[in-house]
Amino acid sequence: MSNSGLFITLEGTEGCGKSTQAKLLAEYLQSLGHSVVLTREPGGTELGSKIRTILLDKSNSIDNLAEILLFAADRAQHISQTIKPALEKGQIVICDRYVDSTTAYQSGGKGLDSKLIKAVNDISGASFLPELTIVFEVDIETGLKRATKGGADRFELEDLAFHSRVRDSYREIARQEPKRVKIININGQSIENVQRSVEDVLKVLLNKRESIK
Amino acid sequence: MSNSGLFITLEGTEGCGKSTQAKLLAEYLQSLGHSVVLTREPGGTELGSKIRTILLDKSNSIDNLAEILLFAADRAQHISQTIKPALEKGQIVICDRYVDSTTAYQSGGKGLDSKLIKAVNDISGASFLPELTIVFEVDIETGLKRATKGGADRFELEDLAFHSRVRDSYREIARQEPKRVKIININGQSIENVQRSVEDVLKVLLNKRESIK
Repeated sequence: MSNSGLFITLEGTEGCGKSTQAKLLAEYLQSLGHSVVLTREPGGTELGSKIRTILLDKSNSIDNLAEILLFAADRAQHISQTIKPALEKGQIVICDRYVDSTTAYQSGGKGLDSKLIKAVNDISGASFLPELTIVFEVDIETGLKRATKGGADRFELEDLAFHSRVRDSYREIARQEPKRVKIININGQSIENVQRSVEDVLKVLLNKRESIK
Repeated sequence: MSNSGLFITLEGTEGCGKSTQAKLLAEYLQSLGHSVVLTREPGGTELGSKIRTILLDKSNSIDNLAEILLFAADRAQHISQTIKPALEKGQIVICDRYVDSTTAYQSGGKGLDSKLIKAVNDISGASFLPELTIVFEVDIETGLKRATKGGADRFELEDLAFHSRVRDSYREIARQEPKRVKIININGQSIENVQRSVEDVLKVLLNKRESIK
């Protein structure tokens, strides 16, 4: 078991199955003997869960900049209270959504000033990037149908064009940072098949870290 | 009555009487025929009141950066939903705490990196400064006793040294921006005397605006 922590984030549009895959990945890594912290944004801390409630509540009318800053506040708390302490203990942190979500949703989806997003990300977490990010890509309509079964939150209520821009933004991030960001296409794949693809990516990363030591 | 809005902020350490003076000032300006919006930070909007609850709750352990970003989110919403629309209608906005509070409390009081505070302020409101800021200066111990009568919030619980640094930071802001920022010392003054000092500052400002037209 490695003594240095490993930070992994999972990303994607609504209904891409990343929360299910996060749990399966945690179990897989635990079975290899690693100590794993499974967390998410927004809402990975006690404070964050209060911020999450505000952010997802359909009845809240939230200014775009205020929204970005709320995500950033959630992230700052999450890094200092959960992510950093776990990595310092040598644990593997799997985080469901992180800084790429801010770029994809607020800059890509909503079309907000990318310089502004970058300035906020620089303050709140861009200097603290994961070693690996997996983006699950799913057909937008299929994903939305799956995600909104039990009722839609404030983000799921956005239209198809919005979610397509989010997907395009994820593709652009992967193009710019191919070493960190891997896309796994889940269309037509069983949960087990996707799980195997995730484990394959992890095996490569863990082997690389093992050989460096 | 002027057609162009006027933005005034009131600042000071705990128990300096600014909330009382804000109400009296609003009444005074209304008696002159102005339309006045009396508001505050944090909590000047519906979203902001939810953020305010989080910020002042003693039971919340909040990371310093997360705290700054929560104040910034509250401010972004406040500017876009309350302050800007009122000013565009030609109203006078009186705001109880604003961007100088972030500088005085987070940078001065807590000693956080002033560059970081400046970066967050630049994003959330430093480009949207009031025409006039009145800082009420009170003896720290007297003010704290007055403020914590009904129980202390998360900020009032800080020690005397903290609140002295906040006061010093307000003095420094006034030194750097003497045109915008006026200090009124309220020690030993009756509410009526302070009220008259505030009205004197306002008369000068309103006359100046009148003569420019």
